[in-house]
Amino acid sequence: MSRTTPTRMGEKYPDRDRVDLDALLADARVGHFAFVVDGQPTVLPSAIAKDGDDILVHGSTGSRWLRLLATGIPVALAVTALDALVVARSAFESSMHFRSAVIFGTCGPVADGEKVAALDSVTEALIPGRLAELRPHTAKELAATLILRMTVEEWSLKVSDGWPEDEAADVAGQAWAGVLPIATGFTAANRAPDLAADIAIPDSVRRMLGSRATGYSPT
Amino acid sequence: MSRTTPTRMGEKYPDRDRVDLDALLADARVGHFAFVVDGQPTVLPSAIAKDGDDILVHGSTGSRWLRLLATGIPVALAVTALDALVVARSAFESSMHFRSAVIFGTCGPVADGEKVAALDSVTEALIPGRLAELRPHTAKELAATLILRMTVEEWSLKVSDGWPEDEAADVAGQAWAGVLPIATGFTAANRAPDLAADIAIPDSVRRMLGSRATGYSPT
Repeated sequence: MSRTTPTRMGEKYPDRDRVDLDALLADARVGHFAFVVDGQPTVLPSAIAKDGDDILVHGSTGSRWLRLLATGIPVALAVTALDALVVARSAFESSMHFRSAVIFGTCGPVADGEKVAALDSVTEALIPGRLAELRPHTAKELAATLILRMTVEEWSLKVSDGWPEDEAADVAGQAWAGVLPIATGFTAANRAPDLAADIAIPDSVRRMLGSRATGYSPT
Repeated sequence: MSRTTPTRMGEKYPDRDRVDLDALLADARVGHFAFVVDGQPTVLPSAIAKDGDDILVHGSTGSRWLRLLATGIPVALAVTALDALVVARSAFESSMHFRSAVIFGTCGPVADGEKVAALDSVTEALIPGRLAELRPHTAKELAATLILRMTVEEWSLKVSDGWPEDEAADVAGQAWAGVLPIATGFTAANRAPDLAADIAIPDSVRRMLGSRATGYSPT
C-alpha cells in the first residue's frame, strides 16, 4: 500500500494542510521514530522540535539509535495528540478525538556550524523563553550532543473530531452520549532541593504553568 | 544491536519489572505500532488494551494496516507516558520524566468465539464500568470489527525521573532548577446535541472526570 494513503479508522478524515501539520508539530513535544534494523521494525520516542519545514531530534553522541538514524536510513515519525474521549451509546461507536501525523523522510547530522542554532531551537521549542535565561552551551556539551535534522519527504495527517454518530435506535434509547475533552498541563514548579532559596521562578517556567503541555482545542 | 538492549538516553535507567510494564500498559490508552512494508518502516497510533499478558488492538475490518498486522508480521509497539518536564540550569541537563516501553511481538486475529470477550476488555480498558451501561454488541458490529491479540516476545522499559543533575558551577549560579509535573485529565462531559435532556451522566463517565487521562505519579 502507498505509505500516505489514509487507511480507514472509523469516521476520521485526512487533512492535507501543511499549516495543520505544523501546528501539531509545534504543539507536540514528543514523536515516535520507527526504523528498520536487520529487517525488523523498531520504534522509539524522542523529544522533537519543528525547525522551519524540518524536524530536529537530539540526544547523546553515545546513542546508537541516533547514530543509526544519522546514516540516512528511512524513518517514519508519528506525532499524535489525543484531544478527547468520545463516549457513544454503543461500544462500537465510542472512540477518541485525535490528530495523528505520520511523516516519512530521512535524518542527517546538523553540521558543526549550525549546531548551536539547532540546539537553541530545540530548547525554545520545549521551554519557550528559557534560552535567554541560561548560560551558553559549553564546548564540552556541544561535543557530547548529536543533533539530527529530519527532512520531510511525505506526510499524512488524520484528524478525528465531532460528536458520537449513533444509530437512530440507540439515540432513541436511554444511554448517555457525549465528548470528554482531555486537557494536559503543568501543575506545579517543584524547586530542586539544591536550589538557593532566593532564586525565584523565572518567566519561562511561569508561562509554562499557565500553558498546556500539549496542544488541545476544546470541542 | 540487540532489540532490547537499552540505548543511552541521558540519565535514564532500564526497568525489567513486568509489574511496571503492566502498570504503564494499563495507564496508557494509546500505543504506536511500527512495522515494515516493502522494506520501509511505518508507524501508526492506536488505542490499546492490556489483556492478561497480551495487548489487544482493534479497528475496522476495512483497515489495511490491521489486516497486515493480522498476518503475523513482526511488530514493535511503543507505549510512552510523559510525567514531567525537567528544567535544569543548562539546556544540556534539561530533559523530561517519562516511562517508555518498547514491545516486540506479533499479532493475530482473535477467534470469533473470543471476540465479544476481547471487545469487552477493550471497552473496559478505555472507559471502566461503561460496559454494564451499554447494550450488547450486535452481530453486525462484531462482523465489522477486527480485533488482534499481540503476543509479547521481548520488551524493554525505560524510566526517567529525579531532579536536575547540574554541574557544581551551575548549582552555584543564579539559574532556577526544578521539575514541572505534567497532569492529564478529563475536564468536562459535553453532552451530545441529540441527547435527551433527562438522561443523566452515567457513573462510568462521572468517574472519568475524577480520573487522569493517562497515568501520572507526582514527583
